[in-house]
Amino acid sequence: MLSAADNEKLTRTGPNSPMGRTFRQYWMPALLSRELPEPDGPPIRLKLLGEEFVAFRDTEGKVGIVEPRCPHRGAHLFFGRNEQCGLRCIYHGWKFDRHGNCTDIPNATPDVAANLRPRAGIKALSIAEQGDVIWANFSATPPPLPEFEYLCVPDAQRFVSKKFQQCNWAQAVEGGLDTAHFSYLHAGVFEGQKASMLDGGKQATVRGQNEPQSQARMRWLIEDGAPRFTVLEHDAGLLLCAARTADDDCTYWRMTQYLLPNHSLTPGNFPENTSLMNTWVPYDDESCWIFCYAWHPEREISQSERERYLRGVGLFAAVDDDFVPLRRRENDYLLDREQQRTTSYTGIPNISEQDQAVADSQGLIADRTHEKLVQTDLGVVRFRATILQACKDVEAGKRPKALGNAEAFHVRSGDYVAEPGESLLDVVQARFGEFSGSNIVFP
Amino acid sequence: MLSAADNEKLTRTGPNSPMGRTFRQYWMPALLSRELPEPDGPPIRLKLLGEEFVAFRDTEGKVGIVEPRCPHRGAHLFFGRNEQCGLRCIYHGWKFDRHGNCTDIPNATPDVAANLRPRAGIKALSIAEQGDVIWANFSATPPPLPEFEYLCVPDAQRFVSKKFQQCNWAQAVEGGLDTAHFSYLHAGVFEGQKASMLDGGKQATVRGQNEPQSQARMRWLIEDGAPRFTVLEHDAGLLLCAARTADDDCTYWRMTQYLLPNHSLTPGNFPENTSLMNTWVPYDDESCWIFCYAWHPEREISQSERERYLRGVGLFAAVDDDFVPLRRRENDYLLDREQQRTTSYTGIPNISEQDQAVADSQGLIADRTHEKLVQTDLGVVRFRATILQACKDVEAGKRPKALGNAEAFHVRSGDYVAEPGESLLDVVQARFGEFSGSNIVFP
Amino acid sequence: MLSAADNEKLTRTGPNSPMGRTFRQYWMPALLSRELPEPDGPPIRLKLLGEEFVAFRDTEGKVGIVEPRCPHRGAHLFFGRNEQCGLRCIYHGWKFDRHGNCTDIPNATPDVAANLRPRAGIKALSIAEQGDVIWANFSATPPPLPEFEYLCVPDAQRFVSKKFQQCNWAQAVEGGLDTAHFSYLHAGVFEGQKASMLDGGKQATVRGQNEPQSQARMRWLIEDGAPRFTVLEHDAGLLLCAARTADDDCTYWRMTQYLLPNHSLTPGNFPENTSLMNTWVPYDDESCWIFCYAWHPEREISQSERERYLRGVGLFAAVDDDFVPLRRRENDYLLDREQQRTTSYTGIPNISEQDQAVADSQGLIADRTHEKLVQTDLGVVRFRATILQACKDVEAGKRPKALGNAEAFHVRSGDYVAEPGESLLDVVQARFGEFSGSNIVFP
Repeated sequence: MLSAADNEKLTRTGPNSPMGRTFRQYWMPALLSRELPEPDGPPIRLKLLGEEFVAFRDTEGKVGIVEPRCPHRGAHLFFGRNEQCGLRCIYHGWKFDRHGNCTDIPNATPDVAANLRPRAGIKALSIAEQGDVIWANFSATPPPLPEFEYLCVPDAQRFVSKKFQQCNWAQAVEGGLDTAHFSYLHAGVFEGQKASMLDGGKQATVRGQNEPQSQARMRWLIEDGAPRFTVLEHDAGLLLCAARTADDDCTYWRMTQYLLPNHSLTPGNFPENTSLMNTWVPYDDESCWIFCYAWHPEREISQSERERYLRGVGLFAAVDDDFVPLRRRENDYLLDREQQRTTSYTGIPNISEQDQAVADSQGLIADRTHEKLVQTDLGVVRFRATILQACKDVEAGKRPKALGNAEAFHVRSGDYVAEPGESLLDVVQARFGEFSGSNIVFP
Repeated sequence: MLSAADNEKLTRTGPNSPMGRTFRQYWMPALLSRELPEPDGPPIRLKLLGEEFVAFRDTEGKVGIVEPRCPHRGAHLFFGRNEQCGLRCIYHGWKFDRHGNCTDIPNATPDVAANLRPRAGIKALSIAEQGDVIWANFSATPPPLPEFEYLCVPDAQRFVSKKFQQCNWAQAVEGGLDTAHFSYLHAGVFEGQKASMLDGGKQATVRGQNEPQSQARMRWLIEDGAPRFTVLEHDAGLLLCAARTADDDCTYWRMTQYLLPNHSLTPGNFPENTSLMNTWVPYDDESCWIFCYAWHPEREISQSERERYLRGVGLFAAVDDDFVPLRRRENDYLLDREQQRTTSYTGIPNISEQDQAVADSQGLIADRTHEKLVQTDLGVVRFRATILQACKDVEAGKRPKALGNAEAFHVRSGDYVAEPGESLLDVVQARFGEFSGSNIVFP
Repeated sequence: MLSAADNEKLTRTGPNSPMGRTFRQYWMPALLSRELPEPDGPPIRLKLLGEEFVAFRDTEGKVGIVEPRCPHRGAHLFFGRNEQCGLRCIYHGWKFDRHGNCTDIPNATPDVAANLRPRAGIKALSIAEQGDVIWANFSATPPPLPEFEYLCVPDAQRFVSKKFQQCNWAQAVEGGLDTAHFSYLHAGVFEGQKASMLDGGKQATVRGQNEPQSQARMRWLIEDGAPRFTVLEHDAGLLLCAARTADDDCTYWRMTQYLLPNHSLTPGNFPENTSLMNTWVPYDDESCWIFCYAWHPEREISQSERERYLRGVGLFAAVDDDFVPLRRRENDYLLDREQQRTTSYTGIPNISEQDQAVADSQGLIADRTHEKLVQTDLGVVRFRATILQACKDVEAGKRPKALGNAEAFHVRSGDYVAEPGESLLDVVQARFGEFSGSNIVFP
């Protein structure tokens, strides 16, 4: 539960808000590289933290993200001509390069133009294009880009996409960090009872013979709906650890990373599985882009995996050409009440769409002043405290947590089945080793 | 004409408004029974007096109307699972019964849950399902349901539906109480002259040979466009009596009931005809639901009558699956100017749609500060004074008129042709007898 | 560049704004005559300077533009019956003539009605129907209608239409007065270079053999992108003169008229060409109607010219049945990026749609507080100063410039190729003679 003031502080990211100033210090994914496929191609509009921009890839293949209006008379540069390393306004031909410098004022005499150009630049974001993503930073002297593991693998071992979420960024992040809901929101239904979802089918929670670990895990998620949370702190953020009762006195751990200010690495994977990361980027305060990254540290992402991601599976949504989910607020996510009665807990197929529906359902901006939190909400509580502290630090002129500490982002998330007696320290070291988080603190 | 303050008081019904507090004491029709057709069926969203709710019919067939958000983290219960006598949130499985009691908190340990549940209830309305309608009251200790005659007849003698009106409730009520407009809004046109509308045809206002009373009545309505109003008061509201000149020195009386706070019984019926009632329930302050009840005290409503009502006739509109009229604000009620020139006064067929169009046309919320009222507006004036007085009483902590006096609603409306010399007292007693209204006051 | 206060003053035209009071003194085109084609035809809704009205052509063929609500109970007169020289409310039959006089109150007794009628009139605009346009003035004692040349030619020598613009009136006017943008916004592209647009084709800017003046002109526009502006003042407004380098030391002059408060006569024509005028009429502060007039002082407008205007060419847009351009804000003007790369500077065909796109792109209301103006913006600067001065005069109770001086509007615009040594005084007198503007001031 937050005060109304803290809820406002947490959720507002416009240019004049405390959280807005905080976010503007960190790198943000602004676009997928494939949204600007070619040099001198069409410029596109975008909105980032409530601010409008125009993005273009120039003749040299470098991306510019600049304020959208020509300083001459305010015509919108989306309509501009992307030519010869710059964007030219259609009204009177003023031209700007990807750094926002004004490079031509053709409707003035040469001496007037020469005098005016230095004062006619426009705001441009700092850009780093890496890992199929165009990253942006609002500072002219940005910190190094965080060393996310997904950025460090070869292109063939990575798949990236994005999807639109029709609510405030923070409640969407909270859904991503809250693995307790897996036992409900993502459950199946079988003969009227909650069931695990196996290979698209469903099954009551009965231990199978020769049941593989990946199937047993679904059963444990269903059977233990009140996991015990421990939150560990490290230099890039938090490792949220949820313990559930497994078979034979073992403990099933799901461990999620929260990385400042708006990233998560999701659990659900054992070492053989693909890793997954999300970044929630405010479009405005009532919607956000969710960037979705899948990678494997050792093997390529196959063509068939890519095709499944594109069609929508797991954390990847089925989206239209504008990356807006086909199931959305306006159509109640095509909720099927008969399926809700007989097959899935929600009547909405796929994890991404289930997460999306419930986060949207909290309102455009969730009201956190009347919550009744329980122990499974510990990760959510610590996330809020961590980002609000970063915000406080920025307001006090201090460097906020994780900013500029690129190596600290070299962490992993994932699942582990612990034998009786294994401590969380043992678990984290056994599962993650050097990827456990720098200066991780065990309570 | 009202002051701006009184217009505001009359029209605003949100939870923190004087009229809102007043309305919340009386019973309101919330839904048609057939909108929740089966136990454990899909929950539905609704809005009542500007407040959002979720309604569901539980395993025992009882209806709950509860606030829409789970108190845990604010997820919307519309997406919830309606199962085993309660609505279960899809996020973490919290469950609520139809009284709003929290009956399960599965993501907490049993002792934490047991402690938390009593403080985790949600607001629920009091419910009375009767006469094909789900009636709701905002009080935990509601008064008895008014004894409307429509509620007292066997099911087969009754037909109920509803329709959406795209303006404030009060101006729509005023249209229902204002029988003077019948001479214009509902008139026909024949050879360029105002005409009566007979059996779907039209006819100039010439007395026919062997003309039945039901046809003569249409002619009197057209011929006398300035009826004389007398308003009588009784314990449930007002009886509005409009006198028009009929043939042979007789007087044609149309008598309408206004019942607090938002019901009317319409005129237009002789004893052999079906009776009609409306209730105007604010959806928000710029739209309302109009519940429409037809019944006959002595005979069944036939199948063909039901089909005509469903298709839209008289006070029943032609509506879509969501009970929104096919002719609506957005399409100018499919107004046909050629028909307006040659056939009907408005170019819009059917009384319901004519009433709807003209009420909407007064604005989303009619401005009553610049009216020029005449004697035929007496009923409208008295309606405003009566409901504003009830509002004043509630604000002063007094019981408002009619509240809890269930028998006082046992009244009728209808038409009568009086011989020369018959007084209004004679007329009312002859026409309504014991249904004249308790403690009715003749001036 | 304007202060925020002056930008507000320039752009707001509602009834209680300084510019609104100023505009309400001048005549405005309200509708095309053909929008009310016949006596006693359907009334239509319109909005003028943010105010709603209903317009109708009465039995005698005269037009009334009246406030939209019946004073009795506020029903909207759009639904009214247009019959026997008046508009009759459908609710209770009150009737109003084209001057707003209440002529019938049929739901009151004759003596009450007679007493009430004089106090039951509604606001009506003064009307002058001339030149295929219904002109309106908010004053009961309006000045004479300006003697635009288009009004003075026979019907057959004139064509008038209108189009909707989705931005504030003032920035649209500025686009009309700013001939400097012709060298960019309206240019073609040929082999990657700016090119002239000839007969729908394109051509690099190379002097052709036996090139006619009309083609050379396109070349000069492209070649000289920084024209020199001189602004001359006369009794009806401003003559904006832009000089570009032509061949053989000649000077190519384009001369535009700005006439108070919201008219322009466009350049681009030599004496043999059709003349063109525009009026920008605020619908509200975020959109306007642009009336478009074409005429020739000496010859008829041919049928094929009329058909081309109707389909959209030059200053006439391709519009739908409601006069809304097919290319519009919502569809990004169907911008074709491939055409922008290879054929036209904007990727949007036709001058009207190019102007429309760039004006809209400045925002719903352009922000003029951060501009960087150059010499080619002189006409825009002088326009703002002129209309703001008129506004100041009105606020001070003085007669604003041009108001009532009907003859002063007898001016022309157009192009001229001056020999070396010809002064602007020579140019204006040679080109326009008696149509140069009364009391024109040469600097």
